[in-house]
Parts: sequence; C-alpha cells; structure tokens
Amino acid sequence: MADLSSLTRYKDRRSTERAALDALLDEVLVGTLCSVLDGEPWAVPVLFARDGDRVLVHGSTGAGMLRHLAGGAPAVFSVHQVDALVLADSAFDHSANYRSAVLRGSLAAVPEKETEECLWLLTERILPGRRQEVRENLAKEVRATSMLALPIVEDGWIYKERTGGSHTPEDIAPQVWTGEVPLRTVAGQPLADREASRALPLPHSVQSLRERWV
Amino acid sequence: MADLSSLTRYKDRRSTERAALDALLDEVLVGTLCSVLDGEPWAVPVLFARDGDRVLVHGSTGAGMLRHLAGGAPAVFSVHQVDALVLADSAFDHSANYRSAVLRGSLAAVPEKETEECLWLLTERILPGRRQEVRENLAKEVRATSMLALPIVEDGWIYKERTGGSHTPEDIAPQVWTGEVPLRTVAGQPLADREASRALPLPHSVQSLRERWV
Repeated sequence: MADLSSLTRYKDRRSTERAALDALLDEVLVGTLCSVLDGEPWAVPVLFARDGDRVLVHGSTGAGMLRHLAGGAPAVFSVHQVDALVLADSAFDHSANYRSAVLRGSLAAVPEKETEECLWLLTERILPGRRQEVRENLAKEVRATSMLALPIVEDGWIYKERTGGSHTPEDIAPQVWTGEVPLRTVAGQPLADREASRALPLPHSVQSLRERWV
Repeated sequence: MADLSSLTRYKDRRSTERAALDALLDEVLVGTLCSVLDGEPWAVPVLFARDGDRVLVHGSTGAGMLRHLAGGAPAVFSVHQVDALVLADSAFDHSANYRSAVLRGSLAAVPEKETEECLWLLTERILPGRRQEVRENLAKEVRATSMLALPIVEDGWIYKERTGGSHTPEDIAPQVWTGEVPLRTVAGQPLADREASRALPLPHSVQSLRERWV
C-alpha cells in the first residue's frame, strides 16, 4: 500500500490526484497521526476533518502529545480505506483494492478564536446537518479543546490506490474463482441513550447518514 | 483515541485486555506501520495478520522501508476500528465508539523457510478457507515475498476502547436527540474478473465472508 519513501515518484500525477486525496480525506473518519518523540516513533488514531488545504485534529488541552505536535514536531498523517478484497489464483497475488494517503508536515495550533468554528467543522464533516440540531457550545468546552491543523502542501503528500480485479490470465488455474468482493461501511439502527431522546423522532442528520451509508 | 504516551497507564487491566487486543487484530484488515527514518516520522498502511504473539506484515523484497524495518528500526503499529458515532447534546461531546491498539517494538524478517506458511496465514486470516481453493505458490512468488514479524510483548502495547452512549443528562437540552449510530463493514456483490471465473459458482470462502460481513 502507500509507501512514503516514494513520495516524489508520482509528481506528474499530483494535480489530478488532489481531487482523489480530498475525496478520501472527506470520506474516512479516522486517520493515524504519527510523530517522533525522543527518537522513537509514536502513533495515535484520531478523528479528523479536512478544511480546504488543511487537516484538523483535536483533543484535550491536557494531552501531552498534542502539545508536542503543536510545537512543530515533524508529523505524518496516514489514512486508508479498503474498498474490496481481490481474489487471485494464488495466495501471493491476493490483494486489496484500497485508497490511501500519507501527508507529511508540521501541525500548528489553531488560534483560540477559530477553535469553535473548527469544532463545528469537525462535527458537520462527520455528521452533516448536526449543527442545526444541538445546543450552543459552552465557553469552557471551547477552552478545553485543543485544535491543531496540518497544512496540505504540494509535495507534502502521496495518494495511492488500487482498483480492478486480480489480472489473473484466463488460462492459469481456470478452476479457481478470481475477482473482487467490494466492502463498504453501513450505518445501522440508531440507539437513543436517554429517555428524552427516545421520545424524539430521529434527527435529520442521522436519517441522512443512514441514507448515505446503506 | 489511543494515546501511546499513556502506554503504562493501564498495566493492571493488561491481561484482560489481551483478549480484546487479539480480537481487534483479528478483525481489522489494515493497520498503520510507523517508524523513524533519518529522524523523520514515516508511516504506511499495510495488510496484516496476527499469528499468536506476533503481527505479520509483508511486502515486496524490493521495498526499502521493509529492509529498514527488518534491520531493527523502532516501529509502532497502530490499528483502529470505529464501531459507532456517538451523538451528544453539544458539538464538544460528540464522539465515536472505537477500539484501537498501538503496538511498539522492532520487526524482524521471518526466516525464508517460514515465509510460505506465513503467506498462507495472511491469506487465511483475511479470507478463511481460501487455501483450499487456490493453486500452490510458485517458488519465485515465495522468494519475492518479504515477510516481517512484530512480536506482541508485555508492556509493548496499549488497547483502548470507547463504548456506550453520550452520557448526556436527561435535563440538558432535552429537545436534542442523543445516542449512537452503529457502523459496520459489509461485503457486497462479488464480481468475477475473468471468463473462467464467471462460469464457476462462488467459492465457499466468499460465501462465508458474505455471511459473516452482512
């Protein structure tokens, strides 16, 4: 799958790939944020949202790694989506159709006055329409949020994908079924978590999500 | 989500968590392998399989990063699964139910004579029963496979999860629906990729996958 050592390999395809990168970043919910701490690799899965030419991640202001990252430590952000299993005639040629991206750069803390808007952005990205359904944020909630941004810069990312079948020739092991099995994420039956909610109809944001993720 | 800086925090829960770690590693198809190269963080998504107390990853023998890792470079392997979106009364309290694990250690190349068995293991882990359906491996295929193993050692991993609803009190913003929306991966309609395969019934491994991932 994506190999960051080949970061410069696909320079010519870079512009056409940007749309694919954005689509992937807008689809995947969780990415893996990696950095180096005292010479050792470090990684953490995080919810995120793309906002134009940057990736927003957030956490508690108490999280030490977020402070380390906000201080400009070199970082890598990796996302992937498996779209299908690919079945070939041999174990060796089995594969997966996937899309993946690895972004490289340094994160910076989002200015405090922009934190709340970014919090909305994260919410809306994961659950479009939710902003109209919830209460306003409390000042203390916004203060407790540490929001960081990783800029998406030219030559700072690589996008890779595999599509299609197994490319097994017709005459090799014709008794073996070869092809792809598509995989997708679906949203199941929502479950209200308090009495007040059980008395309410499903909100529009959840209905939309279920219609999109079927 | 999982924060490796808290690697030692949950020592007392470690033994009970090992079963949960194994279940997660056995369910997720792709993890993110991270290391440090010339002081910079590096990450790549990889298909993997747990084999007892180790995690197997593989790639082409030509891949430079695999050689770097096989040389004992410190590595981190991160996996995650999002099980549900959690909707609260405020943007701030929105969350996701997830399971995640971060393993730390050094990878070592699997001895050549064990490579083929590991290749079968990877195939069977992703698609149980496939071994009975495909042809034997060619010697050149096995030779072209670089198989690495990351040992799962005590104090070398952290497992984290979030479950349940939003914990919004009954009397806060009772007009806001709160609860969870479960997410799951399903296997769609298989697509044969050559004439020979279109003439065959769906293999048992694919039928089983579709019955498990509904």
